[in-house]
Amino acid sequence: MIGRFTHETRGKGLHEVTRLVQQVVDRSGIDEGLCTVMIQHTSASLTIQENADPSARRDLQDWLERHVPEGDPAFTHTAEGPDDMPSHIRAALTSTTLSIPVVHGRLALGTWQGVYLWEHRRRGSGRRCVVHVGP
Amino acid sequence: MIGRFTHETRGKGLHEVTRLVQQVVDRSGIDEGLCTVMIQHTSASLTIQENADPSARRDLQDWLERHVPEGDPAFTHTAEGPDDMPSHIRAALTSTTLSIPVVHGRLALGTWQGVYLWEHRRRGSGRRCVVHVGP
Amino acid sequence: MIGRFTHETRGKGLHEVTRLVQQVVDRSGIDEGLCTVMIQHTSASLTIQENADPSARRDLQDWLERHVPEGDPAFTHTAEGPDDMPSHIRAALTSTTLSIPVVHGRLALGTWQGVYLWEHRRRGSGRRCVVHVGP
Repeated sequence: MIGRFTHETRGKGLHEVTRLVQQVVDRSGIDEGLCTVMIQHTSASLTIQENADPSARRDLQDWLERHVPEGDPAFTHTAEGPDDMPSHIRAALTSTTLSIPVVHGRLALGTWQGVYLWEHRRRGSGRRCVVHVGP
Repeated sequence: MIGRFTHETRGKGLHEVTRLVQQVVDRSGIDEGLCTVMIQHTSASLTIQENADPSARRDLQDWLERHVPEGDPAFTHTAEGPDDMPSHIRAALTSTTLSIPVVHGRLALGTWQGVYLWEHRRRGSGRRCVVHVGP
Repeated sequence: MIGRFTHETRGKGLHEVTRLVQQVVDRSGIDEGLCTVMIQHTSASLTIQENADPSARRDLQDWLERHVPEGDPAFTHTAEGPDDMPSHIRAALTSTTLSIPVVHGRLALGTWQGVYLWEHRRRGSGRRCVVHVGP
């Protein structure tokens, strides 16, 4: 079963989409299986991260800003602005697809885990994800 | 089919869990299919790496220690200690889920590949993984 | 359904394999499902990246060369040469497996996405991938 969702990000950072993914699992009616999410962009990505203290997500964002900075003079792919090339690198270092087991109709995430869409462009946009749920 | 295992790590580094994953594949009775492993934590992760020379794994650990160091003064998420925030970053840079084809009842790993649980906390703990095996 | 392909790389960089993966999907006859690709090596990896402007891929390669450089004096795993250990780290930071939903018999990639085999060794070699396609 294939589902889709679009999430409007409005700037950089980790946007939780656990509920949107779980809604596709709900619609699938599958009790035990596998749920795979793929983001159809190369300047935003996915990650499973801590859903408790927001400071962890701020520090994650800050680390990427410092270690894959905008304005690196070595970049040549700069047509779309200073946040273009860092976005591709940040996406390559994190994940474009995630597969999560489903148990009793729920994503089998750990207690402190959430599914996050990681926006790497300054302005953000409507980010499209495709979800597959199978037995 | 869903299986689970818990692996007691006792400190940082790459702990091989190939045999634990293969045992779930064995129990599934599936001859050809897909095996997905997810770790239910955000301060430990998964990777497929070389299972031959242990110096490769030591250098991997050392690289993370140097490039995502403890005690970075920019970190604000420090309530659980100096190894807390680096653990989240190290997990985001590696993998939380891995999907491996199954052929003739075996994980279709390359000759030199093993599945590793990468512990990022100093003390380690009982790390829980959920495994899905489907046709 | 399991398929395989071998891609001869002839040096470092991102080699597009979207067509090779799609060919396995075609042979499977599956209209809606999930396609998983795994590379059976630990010194090459996989990524989904921009398939339009080649400068993005050159900058990705250049970033890894600068941030996970050959000749790091801290490396001890050097038996196979200066590009050996950086290859393992670069593989750990990117992906060994990718799962992509299949819709209407096609990989459900975004408009600007392609599947790439990322060669990390100087000389390259015949890189083997295993592909699973399921409903």
